[in-house]
Amino acid sequence: MPDRVVLAYSGGLDTSVCLYWLREEYGYEVHTLTLDLGAQPDLEAARQRAKAAGVAEPLIVDAREEFLRDFVFPALKANARYEGQYPLATALSRPLIARHLVEAAIARGASAVAHGCTGKGNDQVRFDVSVAALAPQLKVIAPVRDKGGKLTREEELELLQAHGLDFPMRKSSPYSTDENLWGRSIEAGALEDTWLQPPEDAYLWTKPIEATPNEPRFIEVGFEEGLPVRLDGEVVSALALVTELNRLAGEHGTGRIDHIENRLVGIKSREVYEAPAATVLLTAHEALEALTLSKEQMRFKASVAQQYADLVYNGLWFTAHREDLQAYVDSTQRYVTGTVRVRLHKGNATVVGRRSPYALYQESLATYSAGDTYDHAAAAGFIRIWGLPVRTQTQQQRKGRQNPPSSSGRGSG
Amino acid sequence: MPDRVVLAYSGGLDTSVCLYWLREEYGYEVHTLTLDLGAQPDLEAARQRAKAAGVAEPLIVDAREEFLRDFVFPALKANARYEGQYPLATALSRPLIARHLVEAAIARGASAVAHGCTGKGNDQVRFDVSVAALAPQLKVIAPVRDKGGKLTREEELELLQAHGLDFPMRKSSPYSTDENLWGRSIEAGALEDTWLQPPEDAYLWTKPIEATPNEPRFIEVGFEEGLPVRLDGEVVSALALVTELNRLAGEHGTGRIDHIENRLVGIKSREVYEAPAATVLLTAHEALEALTLSKEQMRFKASVAQQYADLVYNGLWFTAHREDLQAYVDSTQRYVTGTVRVRLHKGNATVVGRRSPYALYQESLATYSAGDTYDHAAAAGFIRIWGLPVRTQTQQQRKGRQNPPSSSGRGSG
Amino acid sequence: MPDRVVLAYSGGLDTSVCLYWLREEYGYEVHTLTLDLGAQPDLEAARQRAKAAGVAEPLIVDAREEFLRDFVFPALKANARYEGQYPLATALSRPLIARHLVEAAIARGASAVAHGCTGKGNDQVRFDVSVAALAPQLKVIAPVRDKGGKLTREEELELLQAHGLDFPMRKSSPYSTDENLWGRSIEAGALEDTWLQPPEDAYLWTKPIEATPNEPRFIEVGFEEGLPVRLDGEVVSALALVTELNRLAGEHGTGRIDHIENRLVGIKSREVYEAPAATVLLTAHEALEALTLSKEQMRFKASVAQQYADLVYNGLWFTAHREDLQAYVDSTQRYVTGTVRVRLHKGNATVVGRRSPYALYQESLATYSAGDTYDHAAAAGFIRIWGLPVRTQTQQQRKGRQNPPSSSGRGSG
Amino acid sequence: MPDRVVLAYSGGLDTSVCLYWLREEYGYEVHTLTLDLGAQPDLEAARQRAKAAGVAEPLIVDAREEFLRDFVFPALKANARYEGQYPLATALSRPLIARHLVEAAIARGASAVAHGCTGKGNDQVRFDVSVAALAPQLKVIAPVRDKGGKLTREEELELLQAHGLDFPMRKSSPYSTDENLWGRSIEAGALEDTWLQPPEDAYLWTKPIEATPNEPRFIEVGFEEGLPVRLDGEVVSALALVTELNRLAGEHGTGRIDHIENRLVGIKSREVYEAPAATVLLTAHEALEALTLSKEQMRFKASVAQQYADLVYNGLWFTAHREDLQAYVDSTQRYVTGTVRVRLHKGNATVVGRRSPYALYQESLATYSAGDTYDHAAAAGFIRIWGLPVRTQTQQQRKGRQNPPSSSGRGSG
Repeated sequence: MPDRVVLAYSGGLDTSVCLYWLREEYGYEVHTLTLDLGAQPDLEAARQRAKAAGVAEPLIVDAREEFLRDFVFPALKANARYEGQYPLATALSRPLIARHLVEAAIARGASAVAHGCTGKGNDQVRFDVSVAALAPQLKVIAPVRDKGGKLTREEELELLQAHGLDFPMRKSSPYSTDENLWGRSIEAGALEDTWLQPPEDAYLWTKPIEATPNEPRFIEVGFEEGLPVRLDGEVVSALALVTELNRLAGEHGTGRIDHIENRLVGIKSREVYEAPAATVLLTAHEALEALTLSKEQMRFKASVAQQYADLVYNGLWFTAHREDLQAYVDSTQRYVTGTVRVRLHKGNATVVGRRSPYALYQESLATYSAGDTYDHAAAAGFIRIWGLPVRTQTQQQRKGRQNPPSSSGRGSG
Repeated sequence: MPDRVVLAYSGGLDTSVCLYWLREEYGYEVHTLTLDLGAQPDLEAARQRAKAAGVAEPLIVDAREEFLRDFVFPALKANARYEGQYPLATALSRPLIARHLVEAAIARGASAVAHGCTGKGNDQVRFDVSVAALAPQLKVIAPVRDKGGKLTREEELELLQAHGLDFPMRKSSPYSTDENLWGRSIEAGALEDTWLQPPEDAYLWTKPIEATPNEPRFIEVGFEEGLPVRLDGEVVSALALVTELNRLAGEHGTGRIDHIENRLVGIKSREVYEAPAATVLLTAHEALEALTLSKEQMRFKASVAQQYADLVYNGLWFTAHREDLQAYVDSTQRYVTGTVRVRLHKGNATVVGRRSPYALYQESLATYSAGDTYDHAAAAGFIRIWGLPVRTQTQQQRKGRQNPPSSSGRGSG
Repeated sequence: MPDRVVLAYSGGLDTSVCLYWLREEYGYEVHTLTLDLGAQPDLEAARQRAKAAGVAEPLIVDAREEFLRDFVFPALKANARYEGQYPLATALSRPLIARHLVEAAIARGASAVAHGCTGKGNDQVRFDVSVAALAPQLKVIAPVRDKGGKLTREEELELLQAHGLDFPMRKSSPYSTDENLWGRSIEAGALEDTWLQPPEDAYLWTKPIEATPNEPRFIEVGFEEGLPVRLDGEVVSALALVTELNRLAGEHGTGRIDHIENRLVGIKSREVYEAPAATVLLTAHEALEALTLSKEQMRFKASVAQQYADLVYNGLWFTAHREDLQAYVDSTQRYVTGTVRVRLHKGNATVVGRRSPYALYQESLATYSAGDTYDHAAAAGFIRIWGLPVRTQTQQQRKGRQNPPSSSGRGSG
Repeated sequence: MPDRVVLAYSGGLDTSVCLYWLREEYGYEVHTLTLDLGAQPDLEAARQRAKAAGVAEPLIVDAREEFLRDFVFPALKANARYEGQYPLATALSRPLIARHLVEAAIARGASAVAHGCTGKGNDQVRFDVSVAALAPQLKVIAPVRDKGGKLTREEELELLQAHGLDFPMRKSSPYSTDENLWGRSIEAGALEDTWLQPPEDAYLWTKPIEATPNEPRFIEVGFEEGLPVRLDGEVVSALALVTELNRLAGEHGTGRIDHIENRLVGIKSREVYEAPAATVLLTAHEALEALTLSKEQMRFKASVAQQYADLVYNGLWFTAHREDLQAYVDSTQRYVTGTVRVRLHKGNATVVGRRSPYALYQESLATYSAGDTYDHAAAAGFIRIWGLPVRTQTQQQRKGRQNPPSSSGRGSG
């Protein structure tokens, strides 16, 4: 009896080829797992295609709320953007898929899990390391990487047809894409020339500025302890909130990202993303923190955000270090409660108002008007102490230069 | 014979009152220094007002190129934005003014310098500490701070008129502003309510989105070793470049900043800025660095950027620490040479292209197409080593839990 | 009826003078609070002296276990040493004293608390800010600071005697000292010359190397989740452990610290400490972490240790930021369980062995002997990817130099 | 005609086997390079052994001064200790050897260089990456790694004898060691049990405490701009200084290091080092910096020290990032001039005095005695501002809690 493997199966061409290879070349009994993360094309087609390829019981799981609750929102609280830009949509989904792969492998008695990544990207690392963290005993198979890279679309289609696995001839996209509730990533094709503006056909979720409404849309996002819970005053579910913000912000052209990114595997790549909801929520969350966290909290948390984003990007979600950083992040959110007003207009998501019961901004301290409660007299003393080391440094270095080390050095130094 | 003081004199109401106080209440012979930093209202008016107030030889200095060369561009190379937002226009000008004050004080035989800052803002710190760093022997006088805060506009006008110092009755602005080539800061008035969108009359340099052209404007900024030297292919002077970018980007609504800021003196304030040229140049510079700096350089330089911005904001320009950070920053710029293409459109300054003779992006490594030169086989080995500590941690912690410390602890730990 | 104040009263000369001033010059009804932190000279003398000075019910509180549990051990888990040297004994006690002052003030209906610090040290900041954090409504009085500095010992004695407050004439120490369970600080006198070795009479807890035993003493400290709970295999209380380690390590000359320290108030000072137990426990704790934390955890935690130490030193214990860092630190300690063997000998506290059920060190991976389980083949792939950006940088920069920007710049950049 | 390879040849058993393999199995014409780094056993034996094995002109280079000047002292200025412990002796030598390998390969017309490292340690990375940085066109061959690990000593001897390459039968060490002027590393054997104290026979350079003199030895090290240039008042060469300090400090038992180290390749190992001169010089240098650098310089430089040490350890010497950090470090050393007095005694290297013409310590500011020039009055103002955000945070969070978000949230947030 052959060993079993659980394959992360999108229903697309690449993983369909993997399915075939795993059975024919690796000799496995193949089980498939397809997750609904909120923006996938066609789950039913994936199920049927798996069945057609001989998979007895394809697993289809709706993991949308779980994704937001356990992965996306913890990262939102951390303000995690890789290299200050990328909200990590794909990166956050990989540990979730790995968790489901591991659970399915255990439930189905499989000795291995498999994914369709190449040897060149970040996703292979995220899958491999996440599985190693959760179930070091499981083998992880990456048939495409084993083959040394991807076949062309035509080769893949031929291969499947040659083995009786019919695959519908959809129009091929010139790009390599991935998407879920937190965003959409677009790579390859014309984007590989860093001097060219991304062609408009790279974008699906966001309108070009010229096609957006002339009127701005103002929205209000309410947070409680760092979590977004209200939209325009109404309590909404995580799923409803993110879905609606993707729609609204996309309509106004918000959330396009185009940057040169450092992959874990030592190369730079040009990455384009659409992340309307993520852009609005991260921007609003940061604005609320500017109101409710102290200066020192903000500075330290910014350094944690970079570490955290690197960890997620690099596949290290299931590590003690990420958990430790999460403990820090969660602690900071105790008072990150309040409402942020955002204007969506012509590609911009601009914070125009923020308020909180825990605001550290106090108009009575900040004002230049009559209500001023600030103690001006203290300032002179403060500056005297603040500038004391600067004054000392100047004085001592001048004195030192007049009494230079070469002479003072002789036995006195 | 009275001691002499050199006053940083803008020609405005506040420093005119200081001029009066310094002579009448502090008993000084007052000299004035007015610097042209590129966006000041009326230097000739300042000269005449100083003369009218009895200053024999008011000093007027064109410091625009010096400002860009010695203060603004070093900060641009560092990507210095305070709290990730504010390009530090006012903060960068204070040490320059302090340097001129000190030089003038020495040239004129003065024992003190003076400025018109209150006890509540950051500028008092910048002036006081910069002077302490450059000339610890000079006294620094801040009449407004000594008085415990600002008079109202009406009280100031009355005071001057009562002493025969006529002051033109311009329409009072509801805001407190400061401006130079690198940007314009707007405070107070309606801005003190953090929930309200800044009124349109707060802005002078940037158009509202609805009034901007419907057509985007594409510009190309050329850098050499971190310095912007070309606009649309033409070599231009620093002054011409910044002036033109302020105009162009302002026309397209780019460069408005509105955030809650942590002042050095322990309070949060709501600060609004217009910085069209700064926004474009910082954005373009960062994009070029993403192409030409390694991953580790980018990460470390980002932490330096925060430190550097804090130092500038906190008045510590003339310190050994700032010079050390500058040495680091300057070293990083050796290969930051190339061109960035930016689309100005409806308030957005979007990088759409970048290229460099030193680009670390290599299409032949990044591509998914046939020209691929990446060594896929190495990836599996890489991931094995990369994931090894994660695997070890899981295994050891599981083993540890099965053999818990309470039992193992008994003399064996 | 006069307002009430609660004074932090050590029973020494300085705070006795404060007691007098608070009543006679500030007009308060004075209550005193004296805490036992484990190394104070004479609590009974303090009580009687307060009574003699007219304090009806002097408060004496044994806070030793509370001090270790709530302040010292949380800081031990963070490996907090100010500037890498000072275990923060005095700094950690100040927020504890402030907490008791605030509680006593509320219980006794006082409107103010008072302390005997000068305007020059760090302790004034710690008291003032801790009280501000806990009870912003209370006034904090610092009579010595108000007077502009300390009186001489003779002036203080005269003052008290002149007002019938007899004070025993103990031999004056040439040093200014403070001590509690976590260490002893020694300042002033001959120590102010940074070129001189501290005189032997500065030390009370630690023997000079020449007077220590010739035989080493090996001890084993057992930790559970970061807390020291066993000594030489025996479960011991925090108080017993620290007391015994102060004795043992002091006997072997361990725990002397002599460094130039940066005070919060802008000056450098030469500080000498004795901290035998702190030195042993911090060293052992760090060694156990090196065995049980991952590389990334160790690096990040080291940066937290510096921040944490700065916060404690700077009087910011009772801040959200310290609590956030504590949440991080506590999370890291989940697996810091095990035993460390330390050799005390001639002033050295040397870790000679460490073991843990959660050790990430695995002999089977590290060994060069036959049991090796490491995958050597993976290394070549790892290095290929690891070195890829370095190789790319060299290649591109060489190519760039051959094709320099001045020519490439002409419209092509 | 066979291709040529230049082998880094120590004259020891492992690299002798490599020499054989490179010729017999890889088919190269083998050239050897042996560097004198100051503590190598027998250069003449290496030369003769290479000749005996058929190498026409073995290269022997005295690189001792170059090593100190170009690698060790730059790292000393950075205070580079890997994980706060290891002064990086071996790690610093690898890029130097790589540089000579590359130069020799070019001079001899070789297409490859080779080293004797296994696939498990850090040195393979340092060689491979350094060569990639300097000469990406050269191949790097690691025969031992290719073979999957080391042969046993007996297998190696047999192999050589079987091919007529006689090798003297020295007594085998139970340890794997490497040494140069900056230190000696000891691994393997009994050291792999982390619970055991290193056996005394692991150490060659340092005496056990019980065998050291009872009298302390005081030494004075004079620095100019961060470089050690004087010993006990006499100007000495780098080579003489380091050699003498290794002898002196070793005699007093100073410089033993024993810790758990995180290797780059994902494993922890137990590493033992002897580094007498390095320990004294790093300690003295840090003490001088504490006297001459500002608080902010010290904090930032400490974070650079960690980065710098990681870079060196991880084989990234020849990178733009290391050069950038060096530019920072070198800038900080402008005023690190002065003399440090160190007491060597019973394994301790204790700083007992330090002085500098640029000292930022000023007795007149620090003193508690009559000469005090500190402005006590400023302190109250300073603390008021310093504590203002803490006070605000407490007040706002209390107010917020009384007016909780759940109620305020209702449409108002």
